[in-house]
Amino acid sequence: MDSIPSLSDIKRAHQRISKIILETPVMTSHSINEMAGCDIYFKCENFQKVGAFKMRGAANMILGFRPEERENGFATHSSGNHAQAVALAAKLSGTKAYVVMPENSTSVKIEATKGYGAEVILCEPNEASRIKTCDEVIERTGAIFVPPFDDYRIIAGQATVAKELMEEVPDLDILMTPVGGGGLAAGTALAAHLLDPNTEVILGEPKNADDCYKSMQKGKIVPVKNPDTIADGLKTTVGERNFDIIKNHVADIYTVTEEEIIDAMKMIWERMKIIIEPSCAVPFAALLKNKDRFAGKHVGIILTGGNVDLANLPF
Amino acid sequence: MDSIPSLSDIKRAHQRISKIILETPVMTSHSINEMAGCDIYFKCENFQKVGAFKMRGAANMILGFRPEERENGFATHSSGNHAQAVALAAKLSGTKAYVVMPENSTSVKIEATKGYGAEVILCEPNEASRIKTCDEVIERTGAIFVPPFDDYRIIAGQATVAKELMEEVPDLDILMTPVGGGGLAAGTALAAHLLDPNTEVILGEPKNADDCYKSMQKGKIVPVKNPDTIADGLKTTVGERNFDIIKNHVADIYTVTEEEIIDAMKMIWERMKIIIEPSCAVPFAALLKNKDRFAGKHVGIILTGGNVDLANLPF
Repeated sequence: MDSIPSLSDIKRAHQRISKIILETPVMTSHSINEMAGCDIYFKCENFQKVGAFKMRGAANMILGFRPEERENGFATHSSGNHAQAVALAAKLSGTKAYVVMPENSTSVKIEATKGYGAEVILCEPNEASRIKTCDEVIERTGAIFVPPFDDYRIIAGQATVAKELMEEVPDLDILMTPVGGGGLAAGTALAAHLLDPNTEVILGEPKNADDCYKSMQKGKIVPVKNPDTIADGLKTTVGERNFDIIKNHVADIYTVTEEEIIDAMKMIWERMKIIIEPSCAVPFAALLKNKDRFAGKHVGIILTGGNVDLANLPF
Repeated sequence: MDSIPSLSDIKRAHQRISKIILETPVMTSHSINEMAGCDIYFKCENFQKVGAFKMRGAANMILGFRPEERENGFATHSSGNHAQAVALAAKLSGTKAYVVMPENSTSVKIEATKGYGAEVILCEPNEASRIKTCDEVIERTGAIFVPPFDDYRIIAGQATVAKELMEEVPDLDILMTPVGGGGLAAGTALAAHLLDPNTEVILGEPKNADDCYKSMQKGKIVPVKNPDTIADGLKTTVGERNFDIIKNHVADIYTVTEEEIIDAMKMIWERMKIIIEPSCAVPFAALLKNKDRFAGKHVGIILTGGNVDLANLPF
């Protein structure tokens, strides 16, 4: 797929992946709505398989190949949720996954990826080694590379979260996601634009990794260097295809501090009794910081994942 | 109500409270089922109002009075979820709650109870002072006492969790709850007995607070003295009315160590991405310890609550 996904691409993606992903629940909280001054519908991708929305994009790309094309398996490099998503999506599609992970990844993450049936190949903890090692794996095995976000098949897969939420809760005024590489942010912006142009999309981004915010101001990608944020899923600079869509279809981006992220995360844990990653708390923190913008509205917030290290919590 | 609740008492309770409680979701986890060797249906009362099933019993008792009988409000003494349940149930029924709490209660709990509109009266942190202070409050205000568990109206209210679960998931072989004072345990045993005698009820109890286990062996209540367990909702000795029902309608009680409770709790947090109290993990820990007893069965486990102190987690 080498053009921006159309509505039927997104619908086809949803149909294709529906046999291996979960339709996640939408949760609401009376006390959070009171505090926020609007009606929030949380789309719980923390309950998705592998604990994150990343499962959708990986599943869409992998299932998009014919069975005979899948024979040599799929490869990626990732230290995060994308690793497990590719591992499980490959397994459930009846093929192999090769996942290159930095050797300083936590053993929990490595074991989880192996647990989903992937062959894990360790590399030095830098971008150059990751790419080189992954290229070698592909050379050796004939596996197909699964990019984490800068790909229209991945974007179409992630767009299915918003599609599902908009079907579950009609008449949303605003849809919110965090933005890292931009797979989910672009997918959501596209889905909203194609399904209901009256639904605005607003992104949240950590102030400490505000490449997308700056890129929107400049009109071109401004890479972020060594960002330091607790929202570890959002350290990546936004991708080209992603930024192109975001630029055209996102209404606003708000940035939030580390403290605001932690406060928002704690509020969701305490009030809703669900476990979310710091990255998920970013759009909710952005909403709390800009209540006037959302007053009285129906707001959908995508909770992106629930994979946290319980031994290392920020509160 | 001075006799054991009948099926129509439980149905009436459910109808009565339905306007102020939530119908909580049932969750399942593929990986937990694989690990456990059976199909587990978790009834998520951690998502109930005030974050615990206690809301049901308090609501049933309070709404069982006619509006003019409710005018002087309701009183109780509690340091736990019952305090907040009485506070909110009274508020939603249009009346006042007076809650006696030990002066060493955490400020979070006191504030939460006040937040639900109750007047909080502090007392010395011992049983005698709690009872004396509560009696004084009742004398002064004319409020009606809401007992935490040893009362048929409370038992009928807690029985609605099992009724709801059995309607949501037909053909359960086994239903599990923890046992503390026995409001939920007795209610569940009664509901199962009356709705489907083929559904066995099995309880989990901390080894460090195993009064109900010992009481079942002796055939009479053996009180527990100063129990020390992380499952702080289960420190109470089982009540008389509760034990009477449990004795007749519970198939088994299994005890578990503190370590087994923490491991089971962590597994639910990590795999299911939901926040549960240590007390909730007790029946699941009992299941994991006695897998043969549950092999291949359909098991309903009631997750009783989600109120934890995030600053003080056991992992």
